[in-house]
Amino acid sequence: MRATLIYGRGDVRVEEVPDPVLAAPTDAIVRVTRACVCGSDLHRYRGMEPVAEGLRIGHEFMGVVEDTGADVRSVKRGDVVLVPFLWTDNSCDFCRDGLHGSCRNGGRWAMNGLDGGQGEAARVPQADGTLIKLPVGADDPVIPSVMALSDVLPTGHHAAVTAAVGKGSTVAVIGDGAVGLSAVLSAARLGAERIVLLGRHRARTDLGRRFGATDVVPERGEEAVAAVRALTGGDGTPHVLECVGNTAAFETALGVVRDGGTISRVGVPQYAEARLDFDVFMRNITITGGVAPARRYIPELLAEVLDGTIAPGEMFDLSVGLDDVPAGFRAMNDREALKVLVRP
Amino acid sequence: MRATLIYGRGDVRVEEVPDPVLAAPTDAIVRVTRACVCGSDLHRYRGMEPVAEGLRIGHEFMGVVEDTGADVRSVKRGDVVLVPFLWTDNSCDFCRDGLHGSCRNGGRWAMNGLDGGQGEAARVPQADGTLIKLPVGADDPVIPSVMALSDVLPTGHHAAVTAAVGKGSTVAVIGDGAVGLSAVLSAARLGAERIVLLGRHRARTDLGRRFGATDVVPERGEEAVAAVRALTGGDGTPHVLECVGNTAAFETALGVVRDGGTISRVGVPQYAEARLDFDVFMRNITITGGVAPARRYIPELLAEVLDGTIAPGEMFDLSVGLDDVPAGFRAMNDREALKVLVRP
Repeated sequence: MRATLIYGRGDVRVEEVPDPVLAAPTDAIVRVTRACVCGSDLHRYRGMEPVAEGLRIGHEFMGVVEDTGADVRSVKRGDVVLVPFLWTDNSCDFCRDGLHGSCRNGGRWAMNGLDGGQGEAARVPQADGTLIKLPVGADDPVIPSVMALSDVLPTGHHAAVTAAVGKGSTVAVIGDGAVGLSAVLSAARLGAERIVLLGRHRARTDLGRRFGATDVVPERGEEAVAAVRALTGGDGTPHVLECVGNTAAFETALGVVRDGGTISRVGVPQYAEARLDFDVFMRNITITGGVAPARRYIPELLAEVLDGTIAPGEMFDLSVGLDDVPAGFRAMNDREALKVLVRP
Repeated sequence: MRATLIYGRGDVRVEEVPDPVLAAPTDAIVRVTRACVCGSDLHRYRGMEPVAEGLRIGHEFMGVVEDTGADVRSVKRGDVVLVPFLWTDNSCDFCRDGLHGSCRNGGRWAMNGLDGGQGEAARVPQADGTLIKLPVGADDPVIPSVMALSDVLPTGHHAAVTAAVGKGSTVAVIGDGAVGLSAVLSAARLGAERIVLLGRHRARTDLGRRFGATDVVPERGEEAVAAVRALTGGDGTPHVLECVGNTAAFETALGVVRDGGTISRVGVPQYAEARLDFDVFMRNITITGGVAPARRYIPELLAEVLDGTIAPGEMFDLSVGLDDVPAGFRAMNDREALKVLVRP
């Protein structure tokens, strides 16, 4: 089959790779009908040292079940399934605690010999715990919104949940990428009254307003902090959803958070250390968040996608075939596209 | 009057300073009957560059009201009062939220011309919001336990509260100083079932056991992490109370915390940055805590001190007069004393 490989900074190729085969009785083989390019894929696209053998890539996908191992009970050949960005048994103590990122029998796509999502097919370990059977066809018009449930919407939702956003909350969302916009949508869905979106790309912040942002702050750095504080009586917001993952975004988060408030980080950190100094201590700032347990949130969010309450699929503004995945990376990297849908 | 000044590393002196006088109608003058040396005083004792004019020091004290400004309503001359380690109006929106460290009209002792606690008397701003009138005499046998309420017990309690310790919790407490032992006592009081105390000073960890520690881990660094994990089925503890404030303690906290768990920092951080990397992100670790709102917790804790439910005063193992405060610093710095009570 054909699949996407990354060879280094700016070097993504679609090449022939071995077809997936069942390796354990809990596996399923899924023919991929849609995949996405994720903002976190761009971290490697921007910074990875060259490698001689390309690495598989992609962790957001859906498809049709082609085969199942002997122990798989919840899906069968022909089922249309959504695949979360982590595979999990959905039954260990960590999963039962809603912490699927720490699943005792789970892991990440495109690692340790596993397929990535940006290819024609994938072997799915722990199929019963991982796959969500969809009640719609693989080409249903709602599919782009369903695809947002593989990663970005649950990730934005995780930011809002872990930052304890609720009815009447005042929230700052840092970043107008797909995760930031998902965080806006999630905060609005949870009842936030005021949602300040920090972003400077007009098309994105306009979509952010449609998703529920009440204010947009296009400034950066200290000017952004001053603007958010000006909007909030000088004190900042009790809830900050940090959806970028670099040091500048973390500093902005510390600048806009109200004393006693919470910063939830859902942008994969591109730093090893961050400021947790006397000032952060005296202000009683809480840092929370982390990798989202998408599998836990999908049933609840899927119901609202299917009944039309939310339409996160509006984020996809470019659709490419498998051979054009490299062009999709380029478009996202150059900020010409917000979120790329792949149709293998 | 006489008061304690610090001139640099290892250089604490008791000298003549101006008598305090009422400066605002909300002030009170308190004659100090007891003070303490705090572990955080030792940070300067260990690292402060020499200064030509000594700096006032001390933030844990109690005493007898000598005079009050025209607007003071809650205390009067002759009242025996406990003084929290921050002064606050106890009425602004931050204080009403229980975040006294961010009081809009509060601050720290021994700063900006204010007296420190280690002296014969002090001017107390915002007397109505700061002082707690005590129903016992200044020399009552319960006074050492009352003095623990000025800072260390509320600080340990803040660690337990912000880390969401409750009935049946499994908790690790890092540090066997007065704050660490206070955190043990607080966790036990809140219903923790298992309390692992990380400390290597036998007299202190023995007191920790009396305060409720179920296990003591004397190892340090990676060995301590391995020991705590061995005690907890390999996974670590969901609640970690970091009561030291240096990078090694923070790293130990990251090592012993269970995935999805919370580290509450109440040791004043002696670092500017700390590890918040991909590993911390993937494990969904929450970092919380900060300076404790002692004024908020004191009424609840004082009631239990007065009825004998808790006896945090057991931590005081050295008592000195004002002239011997320098010897008290030395004893605490050399770990000969756990906690020093000063009787001016």
